[in-house]
Amino acid sequence: MVLPNPVIKKKLNLSIMISKKRVKFITSLQKKKVRDEEKLFIIEGDKLVREFIASKVPIQTIVAKPEFLSSISGDILNTIPEIEVVSYEELKQISTLKTPHNALAIIPIQDKELHIKEVFRELVVALDFVQDPGNMGTIIRAAAWFGIKNIICSPDSVDVYNPKVIQASMGAILNVNIFYSDLKELLSTATGEEIPVFGTLLEGESVYNHKLDTKGIILLGNESKGISTELIPYITEKIMIPKFSSAKHGIDSLNVGMAAAIVFSEFCRKSKSIHRLE
Amino acid sequence: MVLPNPVIKKKLNLSIMISKKRVKFITSLQKKKVRDEEKLFIIEGDKLVREFIASKVPIQTIVAKPEFLSSISGDILNTIPEIEVVSYEELKQISTLKTPHNALAIIPIQDKELHIKEVFRELVVALDFVQDPGNMGTIIRAAAWFGIKNIICSPDSVDVYNPKVIQASMGAILNVNIFYSDLKELLSTATGEEIPVFGTLLEGESVYNHKLDTKGIILLGNESKGISTELIPYITEKIMIPKFSSAKHGIDSLNVGMAAAIVFSEFCRKSKSIHRLE
Repeated sequence: MVLPNPVIKKKLNLSIMISKKRVKFITSLQKKKVRDEEKLFIIEGDKLVREFIASKVPIQTIVAKPEFLSSISGDILNTIPEIEVVSYEELKQISTLKTPHNALAIIPIQDKELHIKEVFRELVVALDFVQDPGNMGTIIRAAAWFGIKNIICSPDSVDVYNPKVIQASMGAILNVNIFYSDLKELLSTATGEEIPVFGTLLEGESVYNHKLDTKGIILLGNESKGISTELIPYITEKIMIPKFSSAKHGIDSLNVGMAAAIVFSEFCRKSKSIHRLE
Repeated sequence: MVLPNPVIKKKLNLSIMISKKRVKFITSLQKKKVRDEEKLFIIEGDKLVREFIASKVPIQTIVAKPEFLSSISGDILNTIPEIEVVSYEELKQISTLKTPHNALAIIPIQDKELHIKEVFRELVVALDFVQDPGNMGTIIRAAAWFGIKNIICSPDSVDVYNPKVIQASMGAILNVNIFYSDLKELLSTATGEEIPVFGTLLEGESVYNHKLDTKGIILLGNESKGISTELIPYITEKIMIPKFSSAKHGIDSLNVGMAAAIVFSEFCRKSKSIHRLE
């Protein structure tokens, strides 16, 4: 049942049920096709919903147990167009998690326009066919930590609004703009603008020694295939993370999320005298 | 059907079926209790099985499609006690993956004894209640990359032989010894031996500036709770990874796997003149 505001507080203690149609609609948002059509995505978990509320981004719907809702101020709840009060069993039907928390929310997708020249003024991450939602989520989280504001993904990368990506990014999506765009075109523009393109390649120079920059593109490749052959010629700065093991079996690469974290960290360490914020 | 060697090659083209009892036994190894009793664990995926074969660790059983088996030399197959030839449908019944590959293998668990004094001669990682299998797996993978040979986990950490840990570690388990031990006791011994204990804490000094070492314990905490209160007094070197963002919402921490990768990377970067191997 959708409660029209401002009568929520009075109704919180009533026995109410969410309609089947509504459950079906919310769970359908787990599909990319539906998210694209409806321009909505789901966030889940008490902490994440609280972070989104605190950040003041528009929220379309909160679906939560009464105890969660009663912990949020009435003034805030009044600004939310739709509130669904549910039981644990109902939440379990809707949730993408094995063990649901107390709340989830439906958030409007805000399409942002990619202004290449603006993006090129700072460090920007380009993800070439990153497929694993967990990796995409942790890369967004690491980018946010290291103050990187823009990530441009190849169109075949995993959807940023996939619930598993959102879960792994832990709210960092509030701080990072994600775009989907043809990377060949992007890198070609970068070449024209003399923007450095840093790519991790086996034959690269150690990221510890290589001169890094406060602007440029950090290009990261697919989990098993690495950077696409057609994008490699655009790399102007070939870097690599040195392996400190002589073992012959079991370790031929680092996970792309870990490689991203280490590379971002190195960029920030080297430039910290320039733009460190705290 | 279990094929007795060396008749495998002749029988590869016969129509054979794995018994229900066998399927039940293999899938039961997804449970920690059964793994502990049987002293066996599962690895899955063509690449991982090939790596285990190449590394020459003992393999109890290979369960694979005929095309996988015919790509492995007969001499090697002759050393494997049990080989199960299965169809895709049969593999799907046994697999822990949504889309199974062509092979899995059953590996004997080799209990290794923890020799504290030996372990203390190099960098060692201590994991305090790391729960997520993906995190545990990527930490093992990063440790292997950076030449860290030993990881000591609190008994309440996730089981290293959990199929998801094995999947995320991508064979790195071949290079890292994992122990489960009481961390309070371990850290107390470290104190007695004057072994430094590095712990990531919010009030720590930047890992970029802090003096690191080629030996000592790197202590990493639980995904949401961090390092246990009772272990904090043992930390002799408080370090942290600086945040390069001024954002107020969405980024209060890095994922423990990412933090591990960055910290390991910093230790190796600073000590590379001493023990870099390639």
